[in-house]
Amino acid sequence: MPDSKKISLKTDAHESLIPITHQVADVLTEFGMVNGLMHIFVLHTTCGITINENADPDVVHDLLERLNHLVPWRISSDRHMEGNSAAHLKSTLLGSSVTVPVSNGQLVLGRWQGIFFGEFDGPRQRTLYLTAIPS
Amino acid sequence: MPDSKKISLKTDAHESLIPITHQVADVLTEFGMVNGLMHIFVLHTTCGITINENADPDVVHDLLERLNHLVPWRISSDRHMEGNSAAHLKSTLLGSSVTVPVSNGQLVLGRWQGIFFGEFDGPRQRTLYLTAIPS
Amino acid sequence: MPDSKKISLKTDAHESLIPITHQVADVLTEFGMVNGLMHIFVLHTTCGITINENADPDVVHDLLERLNHLVPWRISSDRHMEGNSAAHLKSTLLGSSVTVPVSNGQLVLGRWQGIFFGEFDGPRQRTLYLTAIPS
Repeated sequence: MPDSKKISLKTDAHESLIPITHQVADVLTEFGMVNGLMHIFVLHTTCGITINENADPDVVHDLLERLNHLVPWRISSDRHMEGNSAAHLKSTLLGSSVTVPVSNGQLVLGRWQGIFFGEFDGPRQRTLYLTAIPS
Repeated sequence: MPDSKKISLKTDAHESLIPITHQVADVLTEFGMVNGLMHIFVLHTTCGITINENADPDVVHDLLERLNHLVPWRISSDRHMEGNSAAHLKSTLLGSSVTVPVSNGQLVLGRWQGIFFGEFDGPRQRTLYLTAIPS
Repeated sequence: MPDSKKISLKTDAHESLIPITHQVADVLTEFGMVNGLMHIFVLHTTCGITINENADPDVVHDLLERLNHLVPWRISSDRHMEGNSAAHLKSTLLGSSVTVPVSNGQLVLGRWQGIFFGEFDGPRQRTLYLTAIPS
């Protein structure tokens, strides 16, 4: 059984939080790991990954608006020619990976928790790298 | 020996950073793992987990005040009916887990480091999921 | 073969993002791990670790400026006598560790990704703790 895998994601907006719990769960099933940790890592520097509420879509709306409030697209000190330093900072604030416990072959997530890919300078083709670590 | 365990935490304020290093160390002793990583994961979306100074309680005070300065409780773009989008953003900024090295059966922490549970919409009953991963 | 190691870092500015990908890759070679995860942990509470672009140095410039914009050095609510609560908050926003996949004995990083140590109250001597976890 494999214990690592790349998966691709096509984002369709400049900014979005895309639920990926199902894709991660599917890869876990392929891996066949019973107990341990699932590590989900983004291979890019203008996106991130986080865990937050997957029930009310207004939470995602508010998170994206609040991240823009916190991290404006341009500020006067910016030098990076691509003009997307805001996306780089959001990437660092969210982080490049999450690690989720696995028990009895299932992701251990709270009732309201989902895994989200954070796109901050899309739309783009993105790649995630998933690793299973048995306990 | 078990290698994962849920522990409960009763928070008693709307916002707090609660030191949990001792509880984590006690679970590590139960696990009996000698070398590896200890993963501490929160099962909720309005709280988080972080590592910071456990010596001067004024650091915790300043962190909570500064997080409120950074993430006001309401902003005009908020839509989520529960009204706690600030807590969801703080959850994402801190992250849902920390991973701490283990050497010779002990948590590897710097002299001033402690593990803190971040409550951002309490008081509530909260659950953490701990996993030991041998190296 | 060892599977954990401390490495030291001398920072030379009050704030900096220092590329450490090469040091981490060298330790991975010492460890000789083929597949798994590399965990990089800071033993301090006024610095952090992150993954971001290692191509254009202007990205690092913009990240440091934007972090200062987000987290001013002093705000009126600060109580901590050392006066470095801003550094403590940046530590919590970046996080105390990153975890990077390893495949065929190499760090799995995207084309533009590098690992950065974030100094927020230097210059100081700093210590990192690296752990290899096979998959």
